[in-house]
Amino acid sequence: MTVSPFDHPYLSGLLGDEEVAALFSAAAELEAMLAFEVALAKAEAAEGIIPAEAAEVIAETAHRFSPDVASLRDATKRDGVVVSDFVRQLRAAVGEAHGRHVHFGATSQDVVDSGLMLRLARVLPVLENRLAALGARLDGLSADFGERPLMGRTRMQAAIPITVADRVAAWRTPLERHGERLRSFAATGLAVQFGGAAGTLEKLGDRAPAVRATLARELGLADRPQWHSQRERIVELGGLLAAITGSLGKMGQDIALMADHGDEIALAGGGGSSAMPHKQNPVAAEVLVTLARFNAAQLGGLAQAAVHEQERSGAAWTLEWLLLPQMVVASGAALRLAGELMSSVRRLGPV
Amino acid sequence: MTVSPFDHPYLSGLLGDEEVAALFSAAAELEAMLAFEVALAKAEAAEGIIPAEAAEVIAETAHRFSPDVASLRDATKRDGVVVSDFVRQLRAAVGEAHGRHVHFGATSQDVVDSGLMLRLARVLPVLENRLAALGARLDGLSADFGERPLMGRTRMQAAIPITVADRVAAWRTPLERHGERLRSFAATGLAVQFGGAAGTLEKLGDRAPAVRATLARELGLADRPQWHSQRERIVELGGLLAAITGSLGKMGQDIALMADHGDEIALAGGGGSSAMPHKQNPVAAEVLVTLARFNAAQLGGLAQAAVHEQERSGAAWTLEWLLLPQMVVASGAALRLAGELMSSVRRLGPV
Amino acid sequence: MTVSPFDHPYLSGLLGDEEVAALFSAAAELEAMLAFEVALAKAEAAEGIIPAEAAEVIAETAHRFSPDVASLRDATKRDGVVVSDFVRQLRAAVGEAHGRHVHFGATSQDVVDSGLMLRLARVLPVLENRLAALGARLDGLSADFGERPLMGRTRMQAAIPITVADRVAAWRTPLERHGERLRSFAATGLAVQFGGAAGTLEKLGDRAPAVRATLARELGLADRPQWHSQRERIVELGGLLAAITGSLGKMGQDIALMADHGDEIALAGGGGSSAMPHKQNPVAAEVLVTLARFNAAQLGGLAQAAVHEQERSGAAWTLEWLLLPQMVVASGAALRLAGELMSSVRRLGPV
Amino acid sequence: MTVSPFDHPYLSGLLGDEEVAALFSAAAELEAMLAFEVALAKAEAAEGIIPAEAAEVIAETAHRFSPDVASLRDATKRDGVVVSDFVRQLRAAVGEAHGRHVHFGATSQDVVDSGLMLRLARVLPVLENRLAALGARLDGLSADFGERPLMGRTRMQAAIPITVADRVAAWRTPLERHGERLRSFAATGLAVQFGGAAGTLEKLGDRAPAVRATLARELGLADRPQWHSQRERIVELGGLLAAITGSLGKMGQDIALMADHGDEIALAGGGGSSAMPHKQNPVAAEVLVTLARFNAAQLGGLAQAAVHEQERSGAAWTLEWLLLPQMVVASGAALRLAGELMSSVRRLGPV
Repeated sequence: MTVSPFDHPYLSGLLGDEEVAALFSAAAELEAMLAFEVALAKAEAAEGIIPAEAAEVIAETAHRFSPDVASLRDATKRDGVVVSDFVRQLRAAVGEAHGRHVHFGATSQDVVDSGLMLRLARVLPVLENRLAALGARLDGLSADFGERPLMGRTRMQAAIPITVADRVAAWRTPLERHGERLRSFAATGLAVQFGGAAGTLEKLGDRAPAVRATLARELGLADRPQWHSQRERIVELGGLLAAITGSLGKMGQDIALMADHGDEIALAGGGGSSAMPHKQNPVAAEVLVTLARFNAAQLGGLAQAAVHEQERSGAAWTLEWLLLPQMVVASGAALRLAGELMSSVRRLGPV
Repeated sequence: MTVSPFDHPYLSGLLGDEEVAALFSAAAELEAMLAFEVALAKAEAAEGIIPAEAAEVIAETAHRFSPDVASLRDATKRDGVVVSDFVRQLRAAVGEAHGRHVHFGATSQDVVDSGLMLRLARVLPVLENRLAALGARLDGLSADFGERPLMGRTRMQAAIPITVADRVAAWRTPLERHGERLRSFAATGLAVQFGGAAGTLEKLGDRAPAVRATLARELGLADRPQWHSQRERIVELGGLLAAITGSLGKMGQDIALMADHGDEIALAGGGGSSAMPHKQNPVAAEVLVTLARFNAAQLGGLAQAAVHEQERSGAAWTLEWLLLPQMVVASGAALRLAGELMSSVRRLGPV
Repeated sequence: MTVSPFDHPYLSGLLGDEEVAALFSAAAELEAMLAFEVALAKAEAAEGIIPAEAAEVIAETAHRFSPDVASLRDATKRDGVVVSDFVRQLRAAVGEAHGRHVHFGATSQDVVDSGLMLRLARVLPVLENRLAALGARLDGLSADFGERPLMGRTRMQAAIPITVADRVAAWRTPLERHGERLRSFAATGLAVQFGGAAGTLEKLGDRAPAVRATLARELGLADRPQWHSQRERIVELGGLLAAITGSLGKMGQDIALMADHGDEIALAGGGGSSAMPHKQNPVAAEVLVTLARFNAAQLGGLAQAAVHEQERSGAAWTLEWLLLPQMVVASGAALRLAGELMSSVRRLGPV
Repeated sequence: MTVSPFDHPYLSGLLGDEEVAALFSAAAELEAMLAFEVALAKAEAAEGIIPAEAAEVIAETAHRFSPDVASLRDATKRDGVVVSDFVRQLRAAVGEAHGRHVHFGATSQDVVDSGLMLRLARVLPVLENRLAALGARLDGLSADFGERPLMGRTRMQAAIPITVADRVAAWRTPLERHGERLRSFAATGLAVQFGGAAGTLEKLGDRAPAVRATLARELGLADRPQWHSQRERIVELGGLLAAITGSLGKMGQDIALMADHGDEIALAGGGGSSAMPHKQNPVAAEVLVTLARFNAAQLGGLAQAAVHEQERSGAAWTLEWLLLPQMVVASGAALRLAGELMSSVRRLGPV
C-alpha cells in the first residue's frame, strides 16, 4: 500500500524526504505518544496524584514497550483514534499494580496532539537549517555571478536588463521572513495539549495547572490552556509551510524558465527522458512548482479543519491527519530539492 | 515512511481501503507499465514495425521480470519519472537481440498515463459495485423504517415532521447519478495515451494510427488521440470522485447529528473513547465528513494541474501523482465506510 | 462597493463578462424568482389548489412588480435569504384577495434554486456557442498555419520538432468533450427544485407530483424530486466549468510562452506597460491562466458545500452563493478572452 | 453587475461589510493610487530628481483629479492593469509643463501594490478593534453565564459536564493570538512597493534608496526592498484572515448546534423562514461557518499565486485581485456578524 508518493518505494526518491518523513512515521508517533505518557506519569507523581513508584514503573516499561500494531489498527478502525488501545496495551505491559495510573486524567487528543508537537519540535529546526543553508548558497551564487547581466522579464516578456544579483535577491529575501517565522513558531507555537475528556482536566482538580506545567516542562513544550478545539496554531503552521514552498516554487519556476531560454543557466545533472536520452530536464526546478501547488491545495483543506465543533470534532481532527503530515514532508522535500538544485548550478547568467 | 494515513500501519485501518489501495501500489503500477510495454510490442509487431519474435521475447520476459526498485528510486530522483530506468532494466532483461525493440516510439507519459488508465479500469467497477450495494442497503432501511416519523430540520433547527423515508431518499437519490457517471466514464473516459516524445508518434510514420488502435484494443482502453497535455478527463474524474464523497459526507453528517439527538438512530458498534469507555462514537459517520472535505480540497489542486503547459509539463503532471491516487483511495474508503455504517444501523427513527 | 473584479468599474473590463454577468445580477435573480412564483401559481391553479383567478392576478401583478430593494436587503440580513420579504412584498402587490395564494406550499430554496436553474438555462448555451466559435477559430488557425514547424517542448525544454497543427490540436480536442458535457448538463441537469418547507410538499398532498410536473414544464426545467439537500449537480457543474477554464488556461499558458520565445507567434494588440510603453504583453493569455486557477480554487470550495446537513443547511447553501456565480462569470470571461485572443493571432509558427 | 454577494444590492446585507468594503471600492483604490503618485513626486523632488514645483502641481492636481472611469476600463482590458491610463490621465490633468514628472521611475506594480498596502493599513485596525470588542463581549458573557452547566460534547456526542465558561474560553482564547498577529503584521508587514520597470529602480541611480525611504515615510509604510515578485507577505496575510474566520466559524458552528439542542442558548432576533414564519434561525451563526469555509477555499488559491514567475507575473498577480479583497471583506463581515451574534445572546446554558 503506497498511495502517497511521499511513502512510495520509488516516487519518494523524487518527492519524499527521509529525514522529515521519519518524524511522521508510525514508529515516531508511537514513540512520541509513549514520551507523553511517561512525562504525564512523572508530572502526576510530582503532584502526588499517582504514586511515585507507578511513574517509575511506567517509565521503565516504556523503554521496552513494543505495541501490537495489528491490534492498534483494528482499534483505530473501531475507535477512530489509536489511543484507547495504545493505553490498554501499555497498561497491560505496566502490569496490574500500576497499570491504572497510566494516562490518568488524559484523553486521546492530549496524547496525539502533544505527540504531534513533539515531532514538530524536531522538524522545525531541520527546516530552518535547510533554509539557512539555502540562503548561504544563494549568497554564494550572487557573489560568483551577481554582476552578470540578465534580461528582466515581466508578464512573460523581455522587459529591461537586470543583473543576476537582482534575480537572486528575489529568491533570497523571502527566506529571511520564513526563518523568523519558523523560529517564532518554534518558540511560542509548540504547546502542550492537556485537557482530559472534555478539556477541563476534571479529574485533577486544583492540581491541574501544576500537572500541566510540569508536563509541558518535561516535554519541552510551552504550557498553554487546552487548545484541542482551537486549531488556529495548526492553520498558522500550515500557512507558514505553504508560504515557504510558495517562495521555493517561484524560484523553481524561474529556474525552469531560465533553462528554457537556454543560455541563462548551466546546471550539472538534470533528468533524462525515456524518449530523448540526450535531453537534460530541470526536474528539481519543476518539482518545486509541484510542491508549492500541492501545499497550497492542502492549506485550503487545513483551513477548513479550523471549523472544529464543540469540545472535539472527530471529522475536523481526522482531516488534519490527512493534510498536515504531507504538508510538512512536502516542505522538507522542497527545501531538500531547492538545496540540491542550487548546488547543481554551474553558472547563472550568460557565458 | 508512512506519511499518508492511507499507507499507515494503523491509521489505514480507519482511513484506508485495501482493495482500492492495492491498485495504487508501486507493484500495481509496475505491473500496468509492463502490460503497456508488452501490448505495445505486440501492436508494433502486428504492424511490422518490430520483429514478431521481439514481441514474443518481450512478452515472455515480462512474466519473470522483477525490476530493481532501488535503481528505479535513484532514477526517479534524477529523471523525474521512473520510465527511463524501467525501460533500461526491461531491455537488459530482454537481452541484446531484442532489447532495443522495447518501448519503441513511446515516451514516459505513454507508459505512466496508460498504466493509470489500466488501474482505473479495475477501480471504477469496484466503486460502482459498492455504490450499488449501498443503494440496496438504503432501500432496505427505507423498507424497514421508512414510515417512522422524523423531525425535519432546516438551518440546524427543528422544522416540520417528515418520515425516515424522506431522509433516506435524500441519501439514496444522488447515488443513481454517481453510478451513471461512473459507468459513462468507464465506457468513454478510459483512453489509451500514446504519443511518443512530443505527442506526434513521429517514429511510427503512417502506421501510427494502426499501432495505437491495436494497442488500445490489447489494453481494453478507448482509442483516442494523445491526451497527455490535455487533462480534462482527469479533472472530470476527480470531480466525479469528489461528488461521490460529498454525497456520502452529507449522509455521514446527518447520521452524526441523528446520533447527537440521541433517539433518532441506533447503531451497533461505534467507537470507544480513551477517557470515557462507556461512550459510543459514530466514528464512520464522522470520517465520511472528513473524506468529503479531503477530496474537496484535493479537487481544488487537481484542477490546478489542468494548466499543463506545452507538450508535457513536469510540474503539472507530478502534481496529479500527489493528488489523484489519494482521491481514488479516499473514495474507496468512503464507500467502504458508508456500507459498514449503514450495515450497522439497527434502527432509524424513534423507538 | 465593488469588491469583486467581476463587478468592478474598471477591472471588469479585463476580468468580467457583461453578457454572462447580466444573468447573475440582482435584477436577473429577482426576475427569475418572479417567474417561479408565476409558474407555481399557474401550476397550482391547474390542479385546483388555488383559484384560477388568483393565478391570473399573480401573473398580471408580476409584470409591473418592482420590489423595494432596501427592504429586501434588511430582510436578507435578518432571515439569511431574500425570499420571505420578497414574497411579503409580492403578496402586498397582488392584494388582499389573492395575496395569500402567492408561494403556496413553497419555501425559500424552491424559489432560489429554481431561479438559479432558470438563469443557468440561459447561460449554458452562451458558453456552448462561445466554445463552438473558439473551436472554429482554432480550426481556421490550423488551416492557415498548421503546417509550419514548431519546436515541441516538454518539461520546459526544447524536445523535437512538431507542427503548429499539433499544438493547436492539443487546444482544440478538449473543447469537444466540454461541448458534449455542456449539452448533456443542459438537457438533464437543469431540474426544478420544489419541495416545500422540508422537502415533502406536505401542503399539496397527492397533487404534489402533478403540480411539480406542471411547474417544471412551465419553467422549461426537468421534473425531478426535490434536490435541495443533494448538491451533486452543483458540484458536477462546477467541475465542468473548472475543466473548461483549465483547458483555456493551458492554451493561455502556451500562448504566453510562445510570446516569450518571441518568434513563435504574432498577436495584434496586446497590453501596454506604464514603465515600458513599447512593450506588448499577451494580457489575455495570462488572464486565461488566472481564471483557470481562480476556478480551480473555487471548485475546491464548492465541493465542500456538498456536505449539506439535514433538510437544509444555511451554511452550505450560502457558501454556494459566494462561489458558483463567480465561477460561471469567470468561465464566460475566459471564453470571451480566449476568443478575442485567438482572433488577435496574426501568425502561429515562425515567419 | 453584481456577481459577488459582497457587492450585491441585497445579499450584501447578509454577507457584506460596508466599512471594510468601502476600502476595497474602485474609488478607494484610485484614491490610494493618487496618494502614491503625490508622495512619489514629493520624494523625488526632495532628492532633486524632479522639480519641487512639479511635485507641488501634482499634489494640487490630485485634489481635484477625477479620472475618466470608462477610459480606465477600456485601458485595463487592453493593458491588464489600470495604471498606464491612470498615469496618462493624471499627466494630462497636471499639464504639459510637469506632466512628465508624474510616476517617474515607477511602474504599475508600485502603484497598485503600494495602494493595496495603504488600504490594508486602514483595514487592519478595523479588524483588530472588532476582535477586541468581540473578546470583551465574550468576557461579559462568561461573567454573566460562565458558571452555568453545559454538556460537553465530543465527536458529536454528549461526553461529560462542563461549564459555559469552558465553552466560551474555547471561543475567546484564539482571539488573543489573532490580535497579536494583526498588530504584528500592521507593524512590519505593510511595506512600500517601489521597484520600477523590473524591480531595480534603474532610473533613479544611487538616489533610489533615499527616494524609497522618503516615499515609505510619506505613505506611513515600512521601507523594504521591492517585493513585487515575492508574495510571502500576501500569503501570510491571507493565512491570518483565514485563521480568524476559522475561529469564528468554530464559534458559529457551536452556536448553531446549541440552538439545535434547544435549551442551551437564547438569542434575540434570528432569521425567519418563508415557509415557517414562527421559526427563528440562527442565521449569523451559520454564516460564520460559511465565511470560514469561503476564506479557507480562497486561501488555497492565494497560496497558488505565490508562484510568481520572473520579475512580474501577470497571471499570478491578477489572481490575487480576485481573491484577497474578498477575503478581507469576508473577514470584516465575519467579525461584524460575530459581534452582532454575541450581542444578541440573551442566555447561555440552561434556564
